[in-house]
Amino acid sequence: MKSLKKKLADDMLVLRGVNQPTTVIDVKGCPIGGESVMVVAGPCAIENEDLLKETAFKVRGSGAVALRGGAFKPRTSPYSFQGLGEDGLRILARIGEEMNMPVVTEIMDSEDIDLVSRYADILQVGARNMQNFSLLKKLGKIDKPVILKRGLAATIEEWLSAAEYILAGGNGKVILCERGVRTSETWTRNTLDLSAVALVKELSHLPVMVDPSHATGVRSLVTPMARAAVAAGADGIMVEVHPHPERALSDGDQSLTPKGFSQLMKDIDPIARALGRRIY
Amino acid sequence: MKSLKKKLADDMLVLRGVNQPTTVIDVKGCPIGGESVMVVAGPCAIENEDLLKETAFKVRGSGAVALRGGAFKPRTSPYSFQGLGEDGLRILARIGEEMNMPVVTEIMDSEDIDLVSRYADILQVGARNMQNFSLLKKLGKIDKPVILKRGLAATIEEWLSAAEYILAGGNGKVILCERGVRTSETWTRNTLDLSAVALVKELSHLPVMVDPSHATGVRSLVTPMARAAVAAGADGIMVEVHPHPERALSDGDQSLTPKGFSQLMKDIDPIARALGRRIY
Amino acid sequence: MKSLKKKLADDMLVLRGVNQPTTVIDVKGCPIGGESVMVVAGPCAIENEDLLKETAFKVRGSGAVALRGGAFKPRTSPYSFQGLGEDGLRILARIGEEMNMPVVTEIMDSEDIDLVSRYADILQVGARNMQNFSLLKKLGKIDKPVILKRGLAATIEEWLSAAEYILAGGNGKVILCERGVRTSETWTRNTLDLSAVALVKELSHLPVMVDPSHATGVRSLVTPMARAAVAAGADGIMVEVHPHPERALSDGDQSLTPKGFSQLMKDIDPIARALGRRIY
Amino acid sequence: MKSLKKKLADDMLVLRGVNQPTTVIDVKGCPIGGESVMVVAGPCAIENEDLLKETAFKVRGSGAVALRGGAFKPRTSPYSFQGLGEDGLRILARIGEEMNMPVVTEIMDSEDIDLVSRYADILQVGARNMQNFSLLKKLGKIDKPVILKRGLAATIEEWLSAAEYILAGGNGKVILCERGVRTSETWTRNTLDLSAVALVKELSHLPVMVDPSHATGVRSLVTPMARAAVAAGADGIMVEVHPHPERALSDGDQSLTPKGFSQLMKDIDPIARALGRRIY
Repeated sequence: MKSLKKKLADDMLVLRGVNQPTTVIDVKGCPIGGESVMVVAGPCAIENEDLLKETAFKVRGSGAVALRGGAFKPRTSPYSFQGLGEDGLRILARIGEEMNMPVVTEIMDSEDIDLVSRYADILQVGARNMQNFSLLKKLGKIDKPVILKRGLAATIEEWLSAAEYILAGGNGKVILCERGVRTSETWTRNTLDLSAVALVKELSHLPVMVDPSHATGVRSLVTPMARAAVAAGADGIMVEVHPHPERALSDGDQSLTPKGFSQLMKDIDPIARALGRRIY
Repeated sequence: MKSLKKKLADDMLVLRGVNQPTTVIDVKGCPIGGESVMVVAGPCAIENEDLLKETAFKVRGSGAVALRGGAFKPRTSPYSFQGLGEDGLRILARIGEEMNMPVVTEIMDSEDIDLVSRYADILQVGARNMQNFSLLKKLGKIDKPVILKRGLAATIEEWLSAAEYILAGGNGKVILCERGVRTSETWTRNTLDLSAVALVKELSHLPVMVDPSHATGVRSLVTPMARAAVAAGADGIMVEVHPHPERALSDGDQSLTPKGFSQLMKDIDPIARALGRRIY
Repeated sequence: MKSLKKKLADDMLVLRGVNQPTTVIDVKGCPIGGESVMVVAGPCAIENEDLLKETAFKVRGSGAVALRGGAFKPRTSPYSFQGLGEDGLRILARIGEEMNMPVVTEIMDSEDIDLVSRYADILQVGARNMQNFSLLKKLGKIDKPVILKRGLAATIEEWLSAAEYILAGGNGKVILCERGVRTSETWTRNTLDLSAVALVKELSHLPVMVDPSHATGVRSLVTPMARAAVAAGADGIMVEVHPHPERALSDGDQSLTPKGFSQLMKDIDPIARALGRRIY
Repeated sequence: MKSLKKKLADDMLVLRGVNQPTTVIDVKGCPIGGESVMVVAGPCAIENEDLLKETAFKVRGSGAVALRGGAFKPRTSPYSFQGLGEDGLRILARIGEEMNMPVVTEIMDSEDIDLVSRYADILQVGARNMQNFSLLKKLGKIDKPVILKRGLAATIEEWLSAAEYILAGGNGKVILCERGVRTSETWTRNTLDLSAVALVKELSHLPVMVDPSHATGVRSLVTPMARAAVAAGADGIMVEVHPHPERALSDGDQSLTPKGFSQLMKDIDPIARALGRRIY
């Protein structure tokens, strides 16, 4: 490990110093990086207010702390549903307020930082933008927590160096999020790399989340991978939940129903306790 | 998932039928695939009798059920230590007998099946031989359990189809073992694919183990990945342990000390209980 | 192939119709996609006016048509040289003018499109931004040719769909550029995928270039891969050339000297002729 | 490159010494590794004598030097056609004799070395057996040329080290063969890595072939990749040809017709000449 660490410059801000504890980031009163494992849940995309409200109500009831929902969607094809844009952000903020849940949404363009910051409590950088250095630099200048997803084929150095762009700009509130890497396996959407979670937690003081929904792309694998993520030491979990996955405008195959999500929460609770942690 | 399953012929012997439980394979009185999570531990290679005895004594004391040790080693270079051969097998069998532990060792050549079967309780097929079809066919004709490691870049179909070669030959005692796949990540030796464990358990009735030592190649990651493997639903764990890793003839960087292994056992116990299972 | 083609919607603008010839894109009087194979050469980053002028003079003398040079550099670490910015653009435009060579430079941020368009004849989207959909949408609104590099681990669908974002916006002048994909091979920086060149030329009417410098990261492999790219049917080649590679501020290991570049040009000429084409 | 070379021990037999020319291996009077580029052609599997004869007659007429055909086939599923075995070997030898072409076939089991050697002029080790070290050691003891295909995800070190097993045993007649590596690309069967060809030719004195048929798995890509392979410096090409690809028992999708093969030969001839070489 000592030799591995040499790949990164000693004075990088992301690196964990000797005996340095994990940085605890406060999100509207909810800490991440401490004793509790934070669970973020919600639909892939915000489709309309009723659906989001129903989802939020149910996931909060099962113990989710924060609400996710995409307003700007990075879609492979220009002809796929691109998200509701600012209308979606408004809905998200309103439901978050009502349910008293911090809200997370994706930022895709540096020009939208002010807009998205007005509505969201946490800004998420997607895998495809992990090395959008212009965006990272500008996120270093804001005062909101940023979830930085690992790139599709990013190495550990590249991921930590991307976080360093944000820290170097002055924003220390970065949460790393593992979401699987590209491999030759075709049964799963990506290959979830949980060793990266343990490794990054050893190297860095930043909290680390796991997104088992995008990592696997297969509903029945989400809960086992959520359990494994907590067992590996993850500080948080981000899960896609949709009341009617078969009608979802995106990522239906990997979305849990509210009932499935409730089971996931029951499953990860004893794992968290086994590690001396708890789920909110 | 239904659509995924179509990649495999319906009548394959490895596939799990509706409501079919996991096959429980008996290894000298120790079952794998049932309620208990089996732990196999020992050095990468058998180096001499005293070292193996010391290791066996200690890992048994911490709760390992079976003893592993390589007599024929698949080494990248022809000039690296190739293992003690039959002398190693004799040592392994003797210590297994003395400690009352079933023993596991690798089979590399179909010509050695009789020889290795005389000494070993479980024959292991390494990742590099997962598609050595001649070897697989001959292993279908013996009556000993076979651990079939996943190939370096094998897909799920290829892995299950390789197991099918053994089952089709008449030997139903196959234990699958995930040990990481090749990716572009260079910090870890391979990328442990725990979603493959959950997926294969869903598709197949065969028990599935995980080898976090070869998967990561990094000592400090072995225990977190053992925890995650148990949480993902693995039926067993295979761990490299060496009394003096810094002096090991192979794989020292990834071997736990007996003390580290004892901690691993304490760590995975509550995880197993959280899933309604136990460690022997 | 017919079955493969079904992965893409029939009416995508990037797809080649029956008997449709390759689109010829005019770059300041120099066509790409026609009989000639276009060679773009220059340093990775613009370091100063004298160096760029020396490089331009020499590569033009060997037959390069266009001049490349980065002013905004996408660097893994925030502490690495980030490029000269607008000063670099000014130098690039001036030398291009003087040498009568169209100039190519990278665009990293949608906010910089106007700025970069004032100086550059071709805007290049780097591998890390291939799925920066906000940037792609805005590039669909300009009237300049865009080189779209393939992402680090992008599939053929993703690459063509990224191009579709630009075409759908109204800008048909897209040149695809293969620059290697991430694999487990560590001797080369990436793995150049020349089958993707032949495949994409079959699927799409857009011209396709190859960047053997970034693909291999190894100087001695650049010329063999340039030969192979032309033989595979590439419409252009982009090569890094630096008068003093050992002193280059970035990518020195993969830069050819002007002399090495001159040899490359001699080497690819007969290959182009063997295919009934020519190098400018 | 100097630093890269350090990954391999200086005294490895496979390494090219200063100014050492490529080793020329004589196959029944046909040299490989010299001025000529050797073309090996034939069906994936030997199906019956008439088909093989027809194929051999036609490929020889187009300039193929050697005839390939599998008698023992490594198939993912145990229920797929496994080859004709010794009957296939007899047919192959007979047609080779009749047509005066050396014959190449795959060896899958160390127990079959004597058998296969009686019939074949070159023994081929497939990608799945590249690290079947028992097989490699025994091939070091015979006096026939061996084609060693690169493993599905093998690194350069692993490939050259596998060849070293054969050379260390005393058999210096090893021909390396690149056949694509596993990546996340799904349009092609594998990703042909032509930079590996240039790299291995720089590192080693052994001749290097390319198999564009298995590498791509797509008929229309075989000829462009054959051109690119010759341009990259390959010493030989191995191509699958079948008179009726749509009826082939294996690999029909990637097999050229005799007519397609004839065009391939016309295409690679001027490329070889451009490099100062020739096709037989």
